[in-house]
Amino acid sequence: MKPQNIRTLSLILSIVLYLLLGAAVFDALESESEVFRKKALEQKLNDLKSKYGFTAEDYRDIERVVLQSEPHRAGRQWKFAGSFYFAITVITTIGYGHAAPRTDAGKAFCMFYAVLGIPLTLVMFQSQGERINTFVRFLLRRAKQGLGFQQTEVSMGNMVLVGLLSCMSTLCVGAAAFSHFEDWTFFNAYYYCFITLTTIGFGDFVALQKTDALSKRPPYVAFSFVYILVGLTVIGAFLNLVVLRFLTVSTGERDVKPESRVAEQPQDTQGDREVSEAETADLSDPSRLRALLSCICCALYDRPSPPHPDEVGGHSNPVFYNSISYRVERASCSSCFTSSQASPCSQALCAGKNYPHSRRKSL
Amino acid sequence: MKPQNIRTLSLILSIVLYLLLGAAVFDALESESEVFRKKALEQKLNDLKSKYGFTAEDYRDIERVVLQSEPHRAGRQWKFAGSFYFAITVITTIGYGHAAPRTDAGKAFCMFYAVLGIPLTLVMFQSQGERINTFVRFLLRRAKQGLGFQQTEVSMGNMVLVGLLSCMSTLCVGAAAFSHFEDWTFFNAYYYCFITLTTIGFGDFVALQKTDALSKRPPYVAFSFVYILVGLTVIGAFLNLVVLRFLTVSTGERDVKPESRVAEQPQDTQGDREVSEAETADLSDPSRLRALLSCICCALYDRPSPPHPDEVGGHSNPVFYNSISYRVERASCSSCFTSSQASPCSQALCAGKNYPHSRRKSL
Repeated sequence: MKPQNIRTLSLILSIVLYLLLGAAVFDALESESEVFRKKALEQKLNDLKSKYGFTAEDYRDIERVVLQSEPHRAGRQWKFAGSFYFAITVITTIGYGHAAPRTDAGKAFCMFYAVLGIPLTLVMFQSQGERINTFVRFLLRRAKQGLGFQQTEVSMGNMVLVGLLSCMSTLCVGAAAFSHFEDWTFFNAYYYCFITLTTIGFGDFVALQKTDALSKRPPYVAFSFVYILVGLTVIGAFLNLVVLRFLTVSTGERDVKPESRVAEQPQDTQGDREVSEAETADLSDPSRLRALLSCICCALYDRPSPPHPDEVGGHSNPVFYNSISYRVERASCSSCFTSSQASPCSQALCAGKNYPHSRRKSL
Repeated sequence: MKPQNIRTLSLILSIVLYLLLGAAVFDALESESEVFRKKALEQKLNDLKSKYGFTAEDYRDIERVVLQSEPHRAGRQWKFAGSFYFAITVITTIGYGHAAPRTDAGKAFCMFYAVLGIPLTLVMFQSQGERINTFVRFLLRRAKQGLGFQQTEVSMGNMVLVGLLSCMSTLCVGAAAFSHFEDWTFFNAYYYCFITLTTIGFGDFVALQKTDALSKRPPYVAFSFVYILVGLTVIGAFLNLVVLRFLTVSTGERDVKPESRVAEQPQDTQGDREVSEAETADLSDPSRLRALLSCICCALYDRPSPPHPDEVGGHSNPVFYNSISYRVERASCSSCFTSSQASPCSQALCAGKNYPHSRRKSL
């Protein structure tokens, strides 16, 4: 069977197993408290029903009114600021759903808007990410030179470490800010930032949904929009660094023949020939999956980059050293992202308090 | 200024303008009906308040109970099937928010789960997408041979057309199925499928949230899970075909020097040398953005692929012809996706009816 097919099948199998594992854990963690919550709510509801003696139909009306009124709690969602906020959640695919179009024209335009906006946004964040990584690499090289390091080359390990620290700082800054502005616990604010910047966007916590913030607190509105867009850029830079290569593995496989690859690089150093062979072996090897799956125990290894292009007259673009043709073994570092990202969650877990809250934190 | 910087700045500017445009249109489309809806709800609420004479605090309790009870309407969200559904919405970043973890342990695990699951899912869908595109290309070539076409090469235009039809069919099949199972209008069901498969996932329409479907309708549950995963694969295949190259532009720029690129391909045909030159010119040219932006008036052009690799002893992997090194001019076809995707929306718009509905269609 073709290596690409083996890799794809292994990936599908991994995802199915991962979903089964996730389902089992979420069931174990949430199922019990769900039953407890449901009972408590039913009890509270029966008290209220008996106190006011609602007819079934009236209670249905109350439900409908309360649920439909919820978006209005934050003031007008569809004036310019609110619509801008909504537009951000569409093209970034965050999709909180705190406000969703209610007219057919709005829904149709939303679909049309997303069809063009999502690819454009994807490309923009990846392009920004690549520029940022190139700049960070330049700064690190300068810093190493300034500090008189003998080895001034910037390794993938250095870049991943900087990326990790940036992602964690972005989340922590956001958590601090939103816990202040929204009166959420730090843990809940961290969870909000994480769910937002991964574009999951449950909508259980949504910023700018209290005290008519969208119309009455322009500086906070501006901060929130900028935070989301800058935060997504930081995450995008990290994905560009460590995940994009996996997406382009197949593209990379056009170079599969080692001998032809070597023939293609008459000027390359031995180091670069190793690259092409590594590629041949690794890109088509399902064991690359283990790199992605073994994130928890992954340790950054800090091998220096190949000689600087200027020194060997090789590739002239530093981005090459982040590219899919660059030692693919290093792609395993991508998994470090996942492990190290988790740690702040667990720290935050200790800080967090488990207050029951409504679907929207505006309540 | 470096071409990559010009491209990135142009992209940022485009996104800002696109957001401003979107905000203006959403404001125009939704703002008025929002005011109207709000007034109607306030009227209804006042009637109910005067009928039952709630105290402010009791009404607050009723609100809280109704909002917190909403997820329970669909039966237990966190038993295995529900947790599996939730896990899908996390790693695909759909994030409806129909159910969201309420315990701190659940939130912490959710973050950890997403950090590993999202990159893995991204890679899986792109890998599947690339395999599907390779298979479709093979089938099309065989079909052309079978039908006795003189030119049996499969062009980018052919692939984009097939991709478009697949995406539109997937959406229409889903719309038909969910409008049947959930009693939604075809337009609303189409909108639900679109918002789900783009991973926006507002959560205003969520499947499996009525009549305790998660526990009582296993075949429908299975269908919904399979539909979401298969649908995302089809969209992933299309993105792999037409958008991935834009994400990898920077990676492609390692090949910037035409002469060195030509030197790298001693066996290549003139056609392929044009490719490298096209790349040099186009990848670094902000005019590529216009390809992405000009989707509405974009027409598929159907230039045949370069000679089959076997004929010229060139690249052995058909995927090469989808790769970023393949005539980048053709990338402009990516924008066709966006235009043609819109048409079914507008068709569906005619079919759709504008019933006011609660945030969750389960009401």
